[in-house]
Amino acid sequence: MNLVLLSEDEIGHDGIVSLSGARAHHIARVLGSGAGDRVRIGVLEGSIGLGTVIGMDGATVRLHCQFDIAPPPRPGVDILLAVPRPKVMRRLWAQLAALGVGRIILTNAARVERNYFDTHILNEASYRPLLIEGLQQARDTRLPVVTIRRQFKILIEDELDSLFEGGVRVAAHPGAADSVFDVVREGAEARVLLAIGPEGGWTGFELELLRSHGFHMAGTGTRILRSDTASIALLALAHEALRRPTASMQTSGAPIPSKHPA
Amino acid sequence: MNLVLLSEDEIGHDGIVSLSGARAHHIARVLGSGAGDRVRIGVLEGSIGLGTVIGMDGATVRLHCQFDIAPPPRPGVDILLAVPRPKVMRRLWAQLAALGVGRIILTNAARVERNYFDTHILNEASYRPLLIEGLQQARDTRLPVVTIRRQFKILIEDELDSLFEGGVRVAAHPGAADSVFDVVREGAEARVLLAIGPEGGWTGFELELLRSHGFHMAGTGTRILRSDTASIALLALAHEALRRPTASMQTSGAPIPSKHPA
Repeated sequence: MNLVLLSEDEIGHDGIVSLSGARAHHIARVLGSGAGDRVRIGVLEGSIGLGTVIGMDGATVRLHCQFDIAPPPRPGVDILLAVPRPKVMRRLWAQLAALGVGRIILTNAARVERNYFDTHILNEASYRPLLIEGLQQARDTRLPVVTIRRQFKILIEDELDSLFEGGVRVAAHPGAADSVFDVVREGAEARVLLAIGPEGGWTGFELELLRSHGFHMAGTGTRILRSDTASIALLALAHEALRRPTASMQTSGAPIPSKHPA
Repeated sequence: MNLVLLSEDEIGHDGIVSLSGARAHHIARVLGSGAGDRVRIGVLEGSIGLGTVIGMDGATVRLHCQFDIAPPPRPGVDILLAVPRPKVMRRLWAQLAALGVGRIILTNAARVERNYFDTHILNEASYRPLLIEGLQQARDTRLPVVTIRRQFKILIEDELDSLFEGGVRVAAHPGAADSVFDVVREGAEARVLLAIGPEGGWTGFELELLRSHGFHMAGTGTRILRSDTASIALLALAHEALRRPTASMQTSGAPIPSKHPA
């Protein structure tokens, strides 16, 4: 947890928040913070700043919040993912949020097993805490927007243009000639939508539908990767390809020490 | 399992191998192969080819092996990784092998907890099947060479030059100006050694030691990633940066159908 995320309505008008549970435990036990110490905080969908510990009482930590860093930009990469096995999907939520995605569109496909949709890991109550875990790891405040669709054809034909308005569309397809990196970099757009198929791959019909809706096919080398490994690898490549030489990555600065001389 | 890996000594002089256990189950149950069908096979550290099912008897599958594809080249990326939490390391073995690494060097560091070294997941009997699982996923036959060292300073000062002879050395360090991708691409070497620190980062001493032994510091953006996510993302970036425009990725060809007209 490199950032303690708060929701707007937790913070009082006086700028004071009272935390219990995992966040309080993290501040008191993992960071070992005491009165006067500061911890890095953020507001969901909002700014980043510092919380000064003003009181600790059993399992409760009270912070005075000050925000001085503007909300980070929404990540430039969206992902369209054929629902993977529940065990894989469970692990992927936090990693997607940590790597940075604006929107996660989960879809059915011919080679997705029907029962993958019946798992609780696709319920917001299950995945939201995992997304927040990923944001807290990566020091982001932008919660990915999640869209889950059972009908691939309707999604691609009727809905996708409103879910992903402008930018380059890339579908990962083993054996395609161009690399995801090259397609995104040469696209020179501000946003990317990255489509990743099921373990058995997209069918011919699905590939054709993607192609006819503006997706460039892009390979990932000769190696066949599991959905989660492929998602992480391709997100990293898409982010790197979007990065412009002028947009330096040197904005993180030094970490804030958890022990502040009070 | 996109390739069934065999060891050299399993194959008889007549080219026949008799399989039981997970591989037989995969061929008979997952692929649903029967007599006359062909499955993609490989020899550890060796060639790739096809095995024709010549007999099935209960839990045993007999294949006649023919190899026609030369052993794949050893992956161009090696990784030097501060030992992560056992739970994370357990998940990482197969993913590293699937993404492709020539050598995995696991090391101690100031911010690695001592008990991480006492876990069975660092025993060859535990990690070897996981590496093989990754190779079978990615259709590779090259088993990564694993080196585990408890003394970081001795490793870097005395051993590293023989473990990694020529190529570009990169250490991932949040906030460094250059990207891993740019450092590797501009290095224009055939091999890369990628150093990834512990969750809390390398210490100043460790960074200095790496720097003085030829490592370029390279950032990964402003986001802080967990060891496993970072390892996968950076391996993907290093591989992409190594890829030369002339070395096309179009070598995988069409998948071999599991049902062969006999």
